[in-house]
Amino acid sequence: MFPCHYTTVYSMKLHTGINSSARREILKKETGVLFISITRAEVNDEKNVKIENNIGGTSIPLGVAGPLLIRGEEIKRNCYIPLATTEGALVASVQRGCKVIGLSGGISTNVNKVGATRGPVFYVSSLKEFKKFSAWLSVHEEELKKEAEKTSSHLQYKKMDVQGVGNYVYTRFYFDTNDAMGMNMVTIATQAIAAFIKKKAGIECLALAGNFDVDKKPSWMNFINHRGLQVWAEIIVPALVVQKVLHTTSRKIYEVWLAKCMIGSAMSGSLGFNAHYANVVAAFFTATGQDLAHVVEGSMGITTTNIVENESLYFSVYLPAVMMATVGGGTKYETQKEALALTCARNVEDLGKVLGGAVLAGELSLLASLAEGSLAQSHQRLGR
Amino acid sequence: MFPCHYTTVYSMKLHTGINSSARREILKKETGVLFISITRAEVNDEKNVKIENNIGGTSIPLGVAGPLLIRGEEIKRNCYIPLATTEGALVASVQRGCKVIGLSGGISTNVNKVGATRGPVFYVSSLKEFKKFSAWLSVHEEELKKEAEKTSSHLQYKKMDVQGVGNYVYTRFYFDTNDAMGMNMVTIATQAIAAFIKKKAGIECLALAGNFDVDKKPSWMNFINHRGLQVWAEIIVPALVVQKVLHTTSRKIYEVWLAKCMIGSAMSGSLGFNAHYANVVAAFFTATGQDLAHVVEGSMGITTTNIVENESLYFSVYLPAVMMATVGGGTKYETQKEALALTCARNVEDLGKVLGGAVLAGELSLLASLAEGSLAQSHQRLGR
Amino acid sequence: MFPCHYTTVYSMKLHTGINSSARREILKKETGVLFISITRAEVNDEKNVKIENNIGGTSIPLGVAGPLLIRGEEIKRNCYIPLATTEGALVASVQRGCKVIGLSGGISTNVNKVGATRGPVFYVSSLKEFKKFSAWLSVHEEELKKEAEKTSSHLQYKKMDVQGVGNYVYTRFYFDTNDAMGMNMVTIATQAIAAFIKKKAGIECLALAGNFDVDKKPSWMNFINHRGLQVWAEIIVPALVVQKVLHTTSRKIYEVWLAKCMIGSAMSGSLGFNAHYANVVAAFFTATGQDLAHVVEGSMGITTTNIVENESLYFSVYLPAVMMATVGGGTKYETQKEALALTCARNVEDLGKVLGGAVLAGELSLLASLAEGSLAQSHQRLGR
Amino acid sequence: MFPCHYTTVYSMKLHTGINSSARREILKKETGVLFISITRAEVNDEKNVKIENNIGGTSIPLGVAGPLLIRGEEIKRNCYIPLATTEGALVASVQRGCKVIGLSGGISTNVNKVGATRGPVFYVSSLKEFKKFSAWLSVHEEELKKEAEKTSSHLQYKKMDVQGVGNYVYTRFYFDTNDAMGMNMVTIATQAIAAFIKKKAGIECLALAGNFDVDKKPSWMNFINHRGLQVWAEIIVPALVVQKVLHTTSRKIYEVWLAKCMIGSAMSGSLGFNAHYANVVAAFFTATGQDLAHVVEGSMGITTTNIVENESLYFSVYLPAVMMATVGGGTKYETQKEALALTCARNVEDLGKVLGGAVLAGELSLLASLAEGSLAQSHQRLGR
Repeated sequence: MFPCHYTTVYSMKLHTGINSSARREILKKETGVLFISITRAEVNDEKNVKIENNIGGTSIPLGVAGPLLIRGEEIKRNCYIPLATTEGALVASVQRGCKVIGLSGGISTNVNKVGATRGPVFYVSSLKEFKKFSAWLSVHEEELKKEAEKTSSHLQYKKMDVQGVGNYVYTRFYFDTNDAMGMNMVTIATQAIAAFIKKKAGIECLALAGNFDVDKKPSWMNFINHRGLQVWAEIIVPALVVQKVLHTTSRKIYEVWLAKCMIGSAMSGSLGFNAHYANVVAAFFTATGQDLAHVVEGSMGITTTNIVENESLYFSVYLPAVMMATVGGGTKYETQKEALALTCARNVEDLGKVLGGAVLAGELSLLASLAEGSLAQSHQRLGR
Repeated sequence: MFPCHYTTVYSMKLHTGINSSARREILKKETGVLFISITRAEVNDEKNVKIENNIGGTSIPLGVAGPLLIRGEEIKRNCYIPLATTEGALVASVQRGCKVIGLSGGISTNVNKVGATRGPVFYVSSLKEFKKFSAWLSVHEEELKKEAEKTSSHLQYKKMDVQGVGNYVYTRFYFDTNDAMGMNMVTIATQAIAAFIKKKAGIECLALAGNFDVDKKPSWMNFINHRGLQVWAEIIVPALVVQKVLHTTSRKIYEVWLAKCMIGSAMSGSLGFNAHYANVVAAFFTATGQDLAHVVEGSMGITTTNIVENESLYFSVYLPAVMMATVGGGTKYETQKEALALTCARNVEDLGKVLGGAVLAGELSLLASLAEGSLAQSHQRLGR
Repeated sequence: MFPCHYTTVYSMKLHTGINSSARREILKKETGVLFISITRAEVNDEKNVKIENNIGGTSIPLGVAGPLLIRGEEIKRNCYIPLATTEGALVASVQRGCKVIGLSGGISTNVNKVGATRGPVFYVSSLKEFKKFSAWLSVHEEELKKEAEKTSSHLQYKKMDVQGVGNYVYTRFYFDTNDAMGMNMVTIATQAIAAFIKKKAGIECLALAGNFDVDKKPSWMNFINHRGLQVWAEIIVPALVVQKVLHTTSRKIYEVWLAKCMIGSAMSGSLGFNAHYANVVAAFFTATGQDLAHVVEGSMGITTTNIVENESLYFSVYLPAVMMATVGGGTKYETQKEALALTCARNVEDLGKVLGGAVLAGELSLLASLAEGSLAQSHQRLGR
Repeated sequence: MFPCHYTTVYSMKLHTGINSSARREILKKETGVLFISITRAEVNDEKNVKIENNIGGTSIPLGVAGPLLIRGEEIKRNCYIPLATTEGALVASVQRGCKVIGLSGGISTNVNKVGATRGPVFYVSSLKEFKKFSAWLSVHEEELKKEAEKTSSHLQYKKMDVQGVGNYVYTRFYFDTNDAMGMNMVTIATQAIAAFIKKKAGIECLALAGNFDVDKKPSWMNFINHRGLQVWAEIIVPALVVQKVLHTTSRKIYEVWLAKCMIGSAMSGSLGFNAHYANVVAAFFTATGQDLAHVVEGSMGITTTNIVENESLYFSVYLPAVMMATVGGGTKYETQKEALALTCARNVEDLGKVLGGAVLAGELSLLASLAEGSLAQSHQRLGR
């Protein structure tokens, strides 16, 4: 009946009724792997481990940079930046940036909570039906909001965008999910919306996620219209600090920035007008239990520099689409919880500020390295 | 002298001369964090832990999906897909895909090793100098190759691209770094090239990495001209398998694919014409010790589907820029090493094939879920 | 004093105090060109010719396609499609499309007037000032509207978007400019807004057009958030019409569309998910006196197809950012005025519908040619 | 039989057996348009007017800017820039730029002939077949070249790119078409290649133009890998010239450039990192008989500026994909031929240089206007 006799599929029950130890036994027979470290790294937290086919854990070395000095009233204590990574030189780079930040009086930050989005696509038979449906959505928005908010007390409906092309109507619903990253929450809420639409307007949802969200893909939609948090951080670094700590000049950093982050990114059709946001975002997300696939959109953004008075260096970072959380998902695991505590973030906006600072620190340090011509050396020394 | 008296920066020596335990003591005083789990998760491998300011480890739950049946002679044994993730439903999704793959006779794969790239930018005074420099590079390419290859016996120079704009000349050097991801290697090799250019042609390197590489940013350069590995995987799923295992039809999957991965991605200006490569790539990279910032370019790509004879479903994935390794970097850590062993990959090309299969499995499963309308339900059950 | 003695610059007064005939005399001496045709093509319309250094006119052959049958009450009479072009095969292609449209009962269309935009960029010293400025703009929006609308009775202020990055605040003001394309109008209105901001908020406008408009460049901003008119057109073509007139099948057209407009455009990083909007848009814009630089954004867009019942072909086009006019600018010239009359458009929305139909006709015809394999032949016959 | 009785389609034979005068009579009855100007503007050149359904001509006012001083031996005489446009202020803007160029000693230019491309897409059943086909293409490239070159003595095959995804193989053939724009030529040559492939390799061409060319769409493929001509132009403008002629400073122009062309374009997801290439390209293309749909890719590009010694302004433009001709197509019409003569271009490379100079002149002038804050004023005075 089936095209091949692939009995293993049936004989091996990886994902039901057995525990991780039993799974390891099966795999040991099949592959010969002894699972010494994976067993030791197992996350022994029955209540929280929600992934399927669990066979243990992966250990990632955890470093810390800081203290990171953030100006303003928002964060009372010094905060630290936990970075889980296997790559040498990264923590040192952020650490050097933190030193510069401290010596320059701290960063200013700004966070705008755009909200998590889900973008279902609906099928219509004609432009006429699209117009009718579009009007219906406007009229019934308050009801959609109610349906969505029934699904969770942690979720608030914010707004929607509607776009039609051919037989397709793309919608994009924005929700405030509090301190949770919220993709599961908004999926369920959007499902409720789609069900309501089906019942009341008779319009079929073709796919609950129509790549109009846009979840975990680089996209201009998220760059231009944002998603999750928008994060900004800035600093003015005195010329003397640039010279003493970064061993270069404001002018040279500026020139590298222009050649690399602006013109270089333009020449290569990039959505990252920056030096290496992804390195810092990935390590920070890993340490603090974020969904690592969100590194994709979370690392888009623009770095700017400017020479201001007395050859001081104005330096800023901007991340338009950061999906983060301080509760739920991976933040519930023990090592991640402890790492989060190091950041002193009381909520997701605070965490966004720390991320902004971490990214700025890393960005400043790498651009200075490139300006000084020491990139290869530091990789030779700290990398492998 | 400095703009602020930020003594902590000086008093706290996070990154030199002390071990992780001492660091934790300092941080405990500052932040109150007890480091119970982080200590337990510490990667006790003095030789390998190369990150700075180490304070322990982060544990990520590790699941496994498989067996993954790959057609052809290349991989003799069944292989398994290790996935480190904190997100529920992901492993189950890939597992379901593997079941479909097994019942359909296995995937076909293809890998093309493009090579790691580094893209230094040089400064010229005029178009005339650009032309002269461009000609010089062509004439002396063999010497550049020699200089580069002197820096490591594991590295082979492959080719270069040269582009000028205004005062800037962007170059992009491609290297074969064997089974290593190779960014450090190619940085050092490119440094040697830049030094040679400086000495012989008198042209100054403005930045060793000019975002023409393009490293860890989404970019059309990498999408169109590729980087690391290009990975393809495909399968034809019989209608009966679609029905029995995926509870939907080839037609419905096709329609969701078209609305989401094609038109939806076009509508949102995305470089990801797929459903969720990033989820699988991130979890696979985490498990196998890859550089997590490479999820950014590694998750770009195009899924295609086609209804073929007897309503079977042709299904394919294509990833144009996958930076991976089976040696070096994070692959040297113990849990990662064991996870790599599960894949049965003998080299980086093999690993690319397993990744291709994993991505195809996840992609097929999610598109089927969306077609069936069960996305929210499975997240309600397996997610949180 | 000046780096070169380039006396011609001074001796030749091309642009002041002389008429086109005198200018031709000067140029005849300098270049030997006799200006026989250019003189004959001169637009003898002193009141309207507003371009500088006029030396006559350029003649472009004008063809017409049609009638174009548009469903609905909006356009009472048949309309015709004027196309000024030097390229063979284009008019024939649109003509064939019109025949198909007529035989299929006419197209449905939809137009949404987004409005012309202008996007000044302002300079701020810090994130703090950006936040303050951003709040100020919200509070004073009604006053900005008043200042803008004072500059012209033909212009209505619609809304604004505000985005900050580093020291820059990008704004995007949307205006309804009635049936005029309106770029001059909105420039003047935005100037008034910027002056008001300077006076009241003390924030300096760095450039009145900060590429956040985005005027005459391909951009995802205009694709996603639109500009001018959004235009849709659709039709269902019976299988018999496809066969008799287009000599192919719905299935084949669909397959070419998928391979070319969807996957092909994805593979090449294009903002045009279509076959050749630009050909039709350029010829229609030339004939009807539009600003030809607006072909750039006006030709972005997505074509969709679908096989519906009885193998009929659903076919649609979508143009997200069409800047057009029925009054002002080039529409005031005589040949352009007459061409506009052929379209029977009473206003710019009507004209958008005719353009939509023209683009659909051309698109359908070319995709059918490709499906039939006759592209090269028709170019051999009709092109040169 | 057909869905509607739309007899006009049959009764009106617009495109065969009648001349333009007869067509006008028919349309006059249908629409009431008198065709006074359109008749007068008719291009009375039976041999050359190759467009179908001709009803006369469209007149576009023609202005001229110049002389444009180009450094080097390539162009012996002064050249002039013909600009056909209905928009006020454009010619004046380019004229002002030419004055600056003359006073600064002339521009330097560079042109690289990449060649016209055609990108057919082929259908394969599997990755295996793709690999086989890909290898076949490499082995038989010399034969493909021969087949292509048989079709025209004016065409030379240059190279090919091959990319596979799913069931699709995208190819991109580059040709040197001498001084012709060449799209018809390369279509016919590619048809020959496809026929040869069909016969010898048995692989079916799905569409002769698979949007991998990429013809007349904005695309990163053409930006990164180029098409037609790559054009560069540069100049160093002394501070005094900036002050006296442009009424601003190098610093201010630089700041506007950075805010607008770099960061503004990044913020809006643009492929145009420039101020207004499209205006100049459209007017120059109209005047010189180019295919106006090529304004789309021809106006992509990057402007750079730099403050060099003595506050002089380094200023450059770069256009990566300019499709132009000095022979064939629209260049054969009389007004266009005379306009081409004004440029003194002996071949298409020369014409590229003049275009580069024209674009630079316009770019410099507009950025200076924005810097000076006079954009709105000049539009008020010269526009309408």
